Amino acid sequence: MNTVGLVAFALVGATKAIREEFDLFGVAVVGLATAFAGGVTRDILVGRVPLALRSADEITLGLLGVGLALGVSALLANADEHPIAQVSDAVGLAAFATAGAIVAVETGVSGFGVVAIATINAVGGGAVADVLLNRSPFVLLEDVYASCAVLGGAAYWLAVTAGTTGSAAAAACAAVTVGTRLAAVSRGWSLPTAQALGLARKRVDDTR
Amino acid sequence: MNTVGLVAFALVGATKAIREEFDLFGVAVVGLATAFAGGVTRDILVGRVPLALRSADEITLGLLGVGLALGVSALLANADEHPIAQVSDAVGLAAFATAGAIVAVETGVSGFGVVAIATINAVGGGAVADVLLNRSPFVLLEDVYASCAVLGGAAYWLAVTAGTTGSAAAAACAAVTVGTRLAAVSRGWSLPTAQALGLARKRVDDTR
Amino acid sequence: MNTVGLVAFALVGATKAIREEFDLFGVAVVGLATAFAGGVTRDILVGRVPLALRSADEITLGLLGVGLALGVSALLANADEHPIAQVSDAVGLAAFATAGAIVAVETGVSGFGVVAIATINAVGGGAVADVLLNRSPFVLLEDVYASCAVLGGAAYWLAVTAGTTGSAAAAACAAVTVGTRLAAVSRGWSLPTAQALGLARKRVDDTR
Repeated sequence: MNTVGLVAFALVGATKAIREEFDLFGVAVVGLATAFAGGVTRDILVGRVPLALRSADEITLGLLGVGLALGVSALLANADEHPIAQVSDAVGLAAFATAGAIVAVETGVSGFGVVAIATINAVGGGAVADVLLNRSPFVLLEDVYASCAVLGGAAYWLAVTAGTTGSAAAAACAAVTVGTRLAAVSRGWSLPTAQALGLARKRVDDTR
Repeated sequence: MNTVGLVAFALVGATKAIREEFDLFGVAVVGLATAFAGGVTRDILVGRVPLALRSADEITLGLLGVGLALGVSALLANADEHPIAQVSDAVGLAAFATAGAIVAVETGVSGFGVVAIATINAVGGGAVADVLLNRSPFVLLEDVYASCAVLGGAAYWLAVTAGTTGSAAAAACAAVTVGTRLAAVSRGWSLPTAQALGLARKRVDDTR
Repeated sequence: MNTVGLVAFALVGATKAIREEFDLFGVAVVGLATAFAGGVTRDILVGRVPLALRSADEITLGLLGVGLALGVSALLANADEHPIAQVSDAVGLAAFATAGAIVAVETGVSGFGVVAIATINAVGGGAVADVLLNRSPFVLLEDVYASCAVLGGAAYWLAVTAGTTGSAAAAACAAVTVGTRLAAVSRGWSLPTAQALGLARKRVDDTR
């Protein structure tokens, strides 16, 4: 799962950078940042030297995703919106949320800390990529995406607290994350804004 | 003071995200980032696992601020500009600058390091929130805000160097920060630009 | 070399902030961030308390660069594009790439880790400055800049792996970085985009 996730995230990030006409170095950086920034942030938060800087295998997978993005962009205009890319992305989201939850529980943080680290590991890469592309991070603006990792992280923490084995908790986290994400994509779920709930007035000026 | 600061910072951040019509998850993330990003950055700089991930109490206060923002936005258009929010924000600025200065002196950094960590702890949350909202950080553009934390951090370091007790130094830091901030708000102080000092030519093209 | 680099990077960053009409505090922050964010990120990645917070000398050099930017902006419109600033910037790029590679090898990361930390140390400051100025990081968009640090970091790692002394490896890293950078500036080298290589279609709408 982690393998699929690294390749898929690097592919999605690199495709965005290609569309913005970044040069090849920029494409590689945005692709690798999408694949690794979440895990690197997790390792920094728990005080480890990041795995991505220690393991050569991880980087090879990220570069494979960047290469795929370059190859596929010649054929498809929006490789990151292809169903295979979307399913791979959901699998990656689940894999990274689970990896984050496992490391967080090992470090001994609070329940909120487990959910926060699982979520940051899962969506941090996409958020950093969007900052590099000078956009507001899409995970804050659109769809049900980060929320799936929040639910997965909460599932992991509940399972561990209930006394299950680590691998059962990991399976629960992955299943909840990938299941809610695929359901959200196929059914077009979205979270409401405060305006939609009547909690705030809509902006009158839409011309900013 | 720390309690007031966490609630006030989360309120201010969440209110900005509501105004930008982020979904509820995004509102919570921007609110919590405003409240905690400064302290998390401080803990990363000195090599600790962030307190916000270890303590459940802190998160509860942050979520309270987010909830307040949602409740108040139904009634007021600009809850973050209400005098109560502004005074609370100044108290939070002072509390966070003091917390940063204390941790910095414990870690044994240089005088500049004490001022830098106090300032980052105080304004880092607002800066991260602005990056998430895809703006230039307001602390770099406007008013006398971060400068108050700089003065407070310097006061702490001077007091400690002069041999006072830690609590006297903390009181000096908090008093200087909150005092200069409230004075700046009520009197409309602002720092000059290089252009205003005649050190650089004004831009001719205002049409960017 | 490190001295030249700190002053040059602070000068370049502060000059950009002056042009955007930031106030004096903002100018100092962007200048210091340009000089120190790369090294601070390196120290965070390898788990050290950042050198910039421990050493008073380093900060003095950064503030000197900010002061120079203010002084020179009164005389020159684009101090950061002056040949002396450009050569100093190339020397700084080489000095910071070398410092990063040395720390990375001491920490015992992979070959990719050495290249990544050398590059982050060299270009991280400019990237953070651009995020503060609300731009897409120029190192991702323009010219042959970060690529020189990549080549320098690779040269260091190859030299160390081949069994040379640390100082010979450092000389190789610095020579490769500064040499490729100055050649790129004087000859106007640039990396191709995927579109230029025929790997992706050009955007039809150029009106964004």
